[in-house]
Amino acid sequence: MNLKIAVLPGDGIGPEVILQAKKALYAIGEVYNHEFVFEDALMGAVAIDKTGNPLPEQTLNLCLNTDAVLLGAIGDPKYDNNPNAKVRPEQGLLKLRKELGLFANIRPIKPYKALIESSPLKREIIEGADFTIFRELTGGAYFGTKTLNEEGTHASDLCEYSEEEITRISHLAFKSAQKRRKKLTMVDKANVLETSRLWRKVVQKVSEDYPDVKLDFLFVDNAAMQLILNPKQFDVILTENLFGDILSDEASVITGSIGLLPSVSLGEKNALFEPIHGSYPQAKGKNIANPIASILAAALLLEHFGLTKEANVIYKAVEKAIEYKVVTVDLKPDSKFGTNEVGEFVSNFI
Amino acid sequence: MNLKIAVLPGDGIGPEVILQAKKALYAIGEVYNHEFVFEDALMGAVAIDKTGNPLPEQTLNLCLNTDAVLLGAIGDPKYDNNPNAKVRPEQGLLKLRKELGLFANIRPIKPYKALIESSPLKREIIEGADFTIFRELTGGAYFGTKTLNEEGTHASDLCEYSEEEITRISHLAFKSAQKRRKKLTMVDKANVLETSRLWRKVVQKVSEDYPDVKLDFLFVDNAAMQLILNPKQFDVILTENLFGDILSDEASVITGSIGLLPSVSLGEKNALFEPIHGSYPQAKGKNIANPIASILAAALLLEHFGLTKEANVIYKAVEKAIEYKVVTVDLKPDSKFGTNEVGEFVSNFI
Ligand SMILES: CC(C)[C@H](C(=O)O)[C@@H](O)C(=O)O
Ligand SMILES: CC(C)[C@H](C(=O)O)[C@@H](O)C(=O)O
Repeated sequence: MNLKIAVLPGDGIGPEVILQAKKALYAIGEVYNHEFVFEDALMGAVAIDKTGNPLPEQTLNLCLNTDAVLLGAIGDPKYDNNPNAKVRPEQGLLKLRKELGLFANIRPIKPYKALIESSPLKREIIEGADFTIFRELTGGAYFGTKTLNEEGTHASDLCEYSEEEITRISHLAFKSAQKRRKKLTMVDKANVLETSRLWRKVVQKVSEDYPDVKLDFLFVDNAAMQLILNPKQFDVILTENLFGDILSDEASVITGSIGLLPSVSLGEKNALFEPIHGSYPQAKGKNIANPIASILAAALLLEHFGLTKEANVIYKAVEKAIEYKVVTVDLKPDSKFGTNEVGEFVSNFI
Repeated sequence: MNLKIAVLPGDGIGPEVILQAKKALYAIGEVYNHEFVFEDALMGAVAIDKTGNPLPEQTLNLCLNTDAVLLGAIGDPKYDNNPNAKVRPEQGLLKLRKELGLFANIRPIKPYKALIESSPLKREIIEGADFTIFRELTGGAYFGTKTLNEEGTHASDLCEYSEEEITRISHLAFKSAQKRRKKLTMVDKANVLETSRLWRKVVQKVSEDYPDVKLDFLFVDNAAMQLILNPKQFDVILTENLFGDILSDEASVITGSIGLLPSVSLGEKNALFEPIHGSYPQAKGKNIANPIASILAAALLLEHFGLTKEANVIYKAVEKAIEYKVVTVDLKPDSKFGTNEVGEFVSNFI
């Protein structure tokens, strides 16, 4: 197979972890005879620094014309604590999601056997948990009109949803539930928000096409609690953009480390793969960042293009790295292995 | 002391747990020579059923003219799964918060020693955790304009904040931090939301009045993770309405049971005390609901009026109930004690 992949290393630890993902893909390409062509481009703070624009035209065009996008991480504290910054790294990411029409972000959550003890949750709570979060990614308060009055004393964010936006991701989520344990939990705040009530109505309607899937509803405050009290109750979780942002990061604690979790964002034509962790600037250049989430993002990419066998080799390699404790300090505080060594182990295994 | 207290038992288990809180207050009144006059009124689904209005005029007037409000819980599934319901129990609660100007909801989080094992989190994670969440309660998406187009295919919720709304709760939160470990964590989504950027700016400004308090910022997705990974890092958390709703329910898992947590909502003139759990309709009338959160809400009420000694007696009684395992099934699955027995134990102890 020939694949052209746009690579956006981004900020902080992005470049180092993405390098390891590329190495894994190169190794796969060699062994299984695929040609992966990578083209790097700028996005995030690094793009602002070099071009003034968090998503330069060139980067966007590249992403629109490749088979897939592999993203590291974006974000820089120098923008976070400056409420007056006019241009911010995140705008690049949000614009990219919108322009590529990446309406569904999908995050699988499952603890690794060998890491069960490193979760803050008790073994009996997380052992056997296995669910997937479908987060709507191009709507809601992320993209609604924002206002700030001239005096800078009054601000607003509009959260909007249309039936169409809810319908398309709902179908994806129900289809996924059909292939799993046939349960879908819709998370919303329908007792307060009008958009949530629309979500409930539309999801109920879509569910008629999937009579074999059991649908239930949870308020987001309760969901945030249930994820920790009893994560095994979930199979597929479906929710809007901001709730999905919060709940999927929260759910990462179940796996023992956010450094292990990849996600895929899907549109009609495009797909983007990334680790879910952030740019973690304090760790930049120290060879301590966990590359596994990025390597697994590469595996999701392979799966997306039907290269299941190849993806499985990566999953296997990562399992071995964890089993042999070839892991970074987030998973083993006294580890002598760094980003490079973990990445090396994985590509050698392939 | 003479206190006139409006009691709104509400829906589901509300009436049963509130009864136990009243019993505790009666006992305190007798022993310490205070006169607590209770006046019950309707709010929630029960008010809709009887009057068509989730917050009847009479209830509102009563609350405006009493020293404090003691609330059970509101909510009924018959409204939750009907996106077309025009009147819902929650509207009563939201209207009450608005009319009484209850702009700050305060929830202390601290695990009980005797219950540490019943948390889904490991002992070493939660032992020693002790923080308070300040949630803004009369602004944000809860109260902004809501729209639904005629075809019912497009909905919106507006999240709005003004400098003034942010300033008043910030002062409360900073003052509380000064009396505690002098750390305040502002939780927002300033990398995406305009309202969050306003929060950051205003809180930074208010912080100048409290140079002894260390201020830091966390994005809400990260905060949802940090609450579970390392709850001991927090002292005072300050956040907007919806984020506070999610995070404070999530944080309840640290204490081992949501059935233990009371909260107080404060305005310039009024104060409302309630358990943070919901109406839990499945448990209604079964004598299995945990009354402790409501009893502790009564203790918070006493503290609010300076009756510290009396409040401490209640805290002590609750600790004893937990120590002697006179608790409901949420805390001890094979318990033979119910709502009444736990309430009885506490008032006898007084
Ligand atoms: C960086 C930020 C804008 C982003 C989001 O909130 O969507 C991130 O938290 C994520 O979840 O991918
Ligand atoms: C019942 C509901 C409207 C309410 C809220 O969301 O504020 C509840 O969850 C709470 O936290 O008091």
